[in-house]
Amino acid sequence: MEKLYVIKIGGNIVDNPSLLTECLQAFSSLKGHAILVHGGGKLATQMATSMGVEQKMVEGRRITDAETLKIVTMVYAGYINKNIVAQLQSLGVNAMGLSGADGNLIQAHKRTGANIDYGFVGDVDQVNTALIQQLIEKNTSLVIAPITHDSKGQLLNTNADTIAQSIATAMSLHYEVHLIYGFEKEGVLSDVNNPHSVIASINRPVYGTLIEQKVIFEGMIPKIDNAYLALEAGVKSVIIGKAEKLNELINGTSGTTIKI
Amino acid sequence: MEKLYVIKIGGNIVDNPSLLTECLQAFSSLKGHAILVHGGGKLATQMATSMGVEQKMVEGRRITDAETLKIVTMVYAGYINKNIVAQLQSLGVNAMGLSGADGNLIQAHKRTGANIDYGFVGDVDQVNTALIQQLIEKNTSLVIAPITHDSKGQLLNTNADTIAQSIATAMSLHYEVHLIYGFEKEGVLSDVNNPHSVIASINRPVYGTLIEQKVIFEGMIPKIDNAYLALEAGVKSVIIGKAEKLNELINGTSGTTIKI
Repeated sequence: MEKLYVIKIGGNIVDNPSLLTECLQAFSSLKGHAILVHGGGKLATQMATSMGVEQKMVEGRRITDAETLKIVTMVYAGYINKNIVAQLQSLGVNAMGLSGADGNLIQAHKRTGANIDYGFVGDVDQVNTALIQQLIEKNTSLVIAPITHDSKGQLLNTNADTIAQSIATAMSLHYEVHLIYGFEKEGVLSDVNNPHSVIASINRPVYGTLIEQKVIFEGMIPKIDNAYLALEAGVKSVIIGKAEKLNELINGTSGTTIKI
Repeated sequence: MEKLYVIKIGGNIVDNPSLLTECLQAFSSLKGHAILVHGGGKLATQMATSMGVEQKMVEGRRITDAETLKIVTMVYAGYINKNIVAQLQSLGVNAMGLSGADGNLIQAHKRTGANIDYGFVGDVDQVNTALIQQLIEKNTSLVIAPITHDSKGQLLNTNADTIAQSIATAMSLHYEVHLIYGFEKEGVLSDVNNPHSVIASINRPVYGTLIEQKVIFEGMIPKIDNAYLALEAGVKSVIIGKAEKLNELINGTSGTTIKI
């Protein structure tokens, strides 16, 4: 099977123009098919503030009301997505930016049943693998914004880590998929205060221990849970590390590799 | 040759949710390939106001400075584009929203040499007809936002009428192209105060007379000039009329047909 890299880059990368450029340069040097999924960053919050749209938080989680959905659609699918695409085009990558609504790429449903009403937040139902295959076989590099739709006309705000995992999982039927979570750190750290304390490899038993010892906590847990969902569904490898070191993450000289 | 409809809808349609829905319903009922190009509407101006970004006008024309480019990218390629796509998907149309940067769809250059510095405004150089053909042959309906790029990483604000004309012209080598300018009026009016005074058909001599008599003026002149550029380059017909009457415009029972 051909290789396919599904690369998610987080908000802290998107917020930092020089880091983003380094990351996109690394992306442009990759051999083989690649899909870039980007997060949102602080721009949406800044926009909301400058527009006087109050950000509602419930139990520490942001609620996507109608005005917030409008802002994240503009910022994620508009500003961030198109700037990444234009930059990749200038680097010789035939990038195409899509949201989950475009070509019915990612169908989702509004989250229900939770104790909290998250508003217009979508959980992924289905990835259009035929469309992705059609485009990447023409050497198009997809750049995907974390906005999905419910096929009834409603756009939905969706977690970018989950989108990357859903795409990686769905595409693993057709490709040897490597899922890379790029962020601002070298990898999963054994000591949060020591940026060089990267854990090179984590398997299930180690993961359990690291959670118990509270070495892994907060945002890293859903990321690694997503990694295991992907690995169990057939994704070949999941690597977490510095977004601008894509080549090193792929050749195994940097970052944390998650193993079954 | 197969038929291809290139349909531009103006800002007044985009601003009016019920008109927009009517127009998209008509679009969804069209037989054959169709491309929708949308304008911007007032939302970008409202956004700029709510964010405190001053809109600079020189000799009655809006200047696209860096902040304004950011806003139009968000509003046109993000909010408007994705909402149209989601709505079309709900109507059973496999819509895909793209800017000119995506897949190098529309390459442009920053306007230079004018007496006025328009800022980040692009004039179209090239349309990627191979990509359009590849997508529409898979029954994808493209929804195009009026943002282009210069292939050096710079996004550019570009007139939607011109984009529609450029696409229609470029595609006329491969398809029987019909270019439709949909807006809020029934067509070109002989009496601006009488909405029913539609001129059914305009040819070159009539056009000259109508300009002389000041029956046609202001924004309608560049629209009709664009129509002639398209017709002279091989576009089969150009029709101007009510956006929600697409079927009637196409079958010739409504609107103004521009002829050579």
